[in-house]
Amino acid sequence: MSFFRPAVDTLRPYVPGRQPAAGARVVKLNTNENPYPPSPRAQAALAAIEADELRRYPDPVSQEFRRAVADTLDLDPAWILAGNGSDDLLTMLVRSVSGPGRPVVYPTPTYVLYRTLAGIQEAPVVEVPFDDDFVLPVAGLAEAGGALTFVANPNSPSGTAAPVSTLAGLADSLDGLLVIDEAYAAFADTDALDLVRRRPNVVILRTLSKSHGLAGLRLGYAIAPPGVIEGLAKVKDSYNVGAVADRVGAAAIRDTAHAQRVVDRIVGSRKTLAEQFERLGWRVWPSQANFLLVRPPAGDAARLHRQLEACGVLVRHFDEPALADTLRITVGTDEQHAVLLDALQRIL
Amino acid sequence: MSFFRPAVDTLRPYVPGRQPAAGARVVKLNTNENPYPPSPRAQAALAAIEADELRRYPDPVSQEFRRAVADTLDLDPAWILAGNGSDDLLTMLVRSVSGPGRPVVYPTPTYVLYRTLAGIQEAPVVEVPFDDDFVLPVAGLAEAGGALTFVANPNSPSGTAAPVSTLAGLADSLDGLLVIDEAYAAFADTDALDLVRRRPNVVILRTLSKSHGLAGLRLGYAIAPPGVIEGLAKVKDSYNVGAVADRVGAAAIRDTAHAQRVVDRIVGSRKTLAEQFERLGWRVWPSQANFLLVRPPAGDAARLHRQLEACGVLVRHFDEPALADTLRITVGTDEQHAVLLDALQRIL
Repeated sequence: MSFFRPAVDTLRPYVPGRQPAAGARVVKLNTNENPYPPSPRAQAALAAIEADELRRYPDPVSQEFRRAVADTLDLDPAWILAGNGSDDLLTMLVRSVSGPGRPVVYPTPTYVLYRTLAGIQEAPVVEVPFDDDFVLPVAGLAEAGGALTFVANPNSPSGTAAPVSTLAGLADSLDGLLVIDEAYAAFADTDALDLVRRRPNVVILRTLSKSHGLAGLRLGYAIAPPGVIEGLAKVKDSYNVGAVADRVGAAAIRDTAHAQRVVDRIVGSRKTLAEQFERLGWRVWPSQANFLLVRPPAGDAARLHRQLEACGVLVRHFDEPALADTLRITVGTDEQHAVLLDALQRIL
Repeated sequence: MSFFRPAVDTLRPYVPGRQPAAGARVVKLNTNENPYPPSPRAQAALAAIEADELRRYPDPVSQEFRRAVADTLDLDPAWILAGNGSDDLLTMLVRSVSGPGRPVVYPTPTYVLYRTLAGIQEAPVVEVPFDDDFVLPVAGLAEAGGALTFVANPNSPSGTAAPVSTLAGLADSLDGLLVIDEAYAAFADTDALDLVRRRPNVVILRTLSKSHGLAGLRLGYAIAPPGVIEGLAKVKDSYNVGAVADRVGAAAIRDTAHAQRVVDRIVGSRKTLAEQFERLGWRVWPSQANFLLVRPPAGDAARLHRQLEACGVLVRHFDEPALADTLRITVGTDEQHAVLLDALQRIL
């Protein structure tokens, strides 16, 4: 006999990409971390945390961080909700909106957490497949009638992005919420910030894990009309973001110059790495994110993944039919790319 | 039209105790924070956090922290799950176990978050009232047949505790999980650690917010048989505890001497404060926690609460009929108690 709900007993938990021990000598291109350290101002903010800030409960609505985001994006703080990583915000969305009879809809393949969260919530799931070029299947998404529709834009693991005009059309055709998961939007040519201001049913999610090099801190935020933010906040843990993240995150967000330098560098490295794979004859999907989805000519991605790991190079291979012959490779430093390409040359 | 589930639309969100701005000149005895700073070793661990730990995703199962807890309690780490505060663990429990047809049961008055979480989950709720002495209503709790039964022990806001033998009997009479919320157990004469080792259906929750002076860090843990821990972990966010909390929390847990010194001091101050209120003719419930539930002779608790606030002394008054004539007062420093008693003398 189980103590848990049947939906939980049958759940396949999300398996994060492998995290080697700190100090392990590996080239880690499997979890889309930023290869560059966070803003020196964020590090200084961490060093300045006082014992009293640890001792007291944090601000329940992360005012320091939200004000920093609001100032940077020229928004009212009432449009912003902080989360313990954007996963926390995804959980709030699925818990507060979906359930039996209230479908969760998204294109596939995409971030697999959407499926896991919908399963916990016992919500019907409608998965609308991308085509091989990862063009957003707008008509199928619209027809599915989701209470909650997720579009990761840029999408993971493809790195491809739909134009904002396409998202606007999708938002207009939906009665429910359209969540545009912009975890990777800092690396893209455009984002949906203008759209969220002009649509009642659009939510944007962002994270400091990638663009700001703060995956270890756990901090993300939602942007949505205040009424939507209020609904989400009802299901958040009272103190979901700690005092350290509130302060360090605010400092990181305000250092826009540092973030832009790092993003520009990664976008430059992405272009070079894509060209290198194309010269090797691999298919490379056009990426707007800090990673590339690539297909080796022989399609032997699972084997290459294992052999690269044996050479100390971690990339991501997904155990899903649609992705069986592809690898997702995080854009790292030029040195990391050299090790990767060297290893591939020896293997191939 | 709402985007949210009806159960969320009708939800009254939890209102945390007032948090004045940092540096505000108030005596803050309203949210059960520890008046003493956290372990110097925890502070040193914070200062030693490197940029690379912020940059990378944290360990998804908080191994450093769990090993510290396991070592300190002489348990296998498989018996321990870390949470972003114990609220995160409460959320995991309610999400994974309860739902329509799967009741949540607890005595009242107690921590109001149990009700909020059950409401989000659309689970039936059975509230079994304490008597005026806050004796645990074991028979009523057992008969309610909860899929999930919560007992805060010591209870908040009463500070009273049930003997472990009573909890053992309750566990034996339940088919579902018995969650013993030990947020305040560090200040009590006993705890249920032996019980969790010997019962398949007992879960203990603890937090570093009170005993370890780390409310701002957001860190708690569950202790339960490994099969129960695995079920809970299925519904946790992949990286629910950040790298800072993992490391700082581990250092705090290992500094058992510091924690014991602080707890001893608070237990001593609790005794003195209780005697002072009794001399004033107030009813004081016997507290095993870091706060006192007290009833002024005239029962005018709401008025006293407001007048104390006007004097810069924050205590807690709950907007519930059963608690209308009581105040919950956190045990602070001797200096804070002097200010509180001075203010009361002027008011009364």
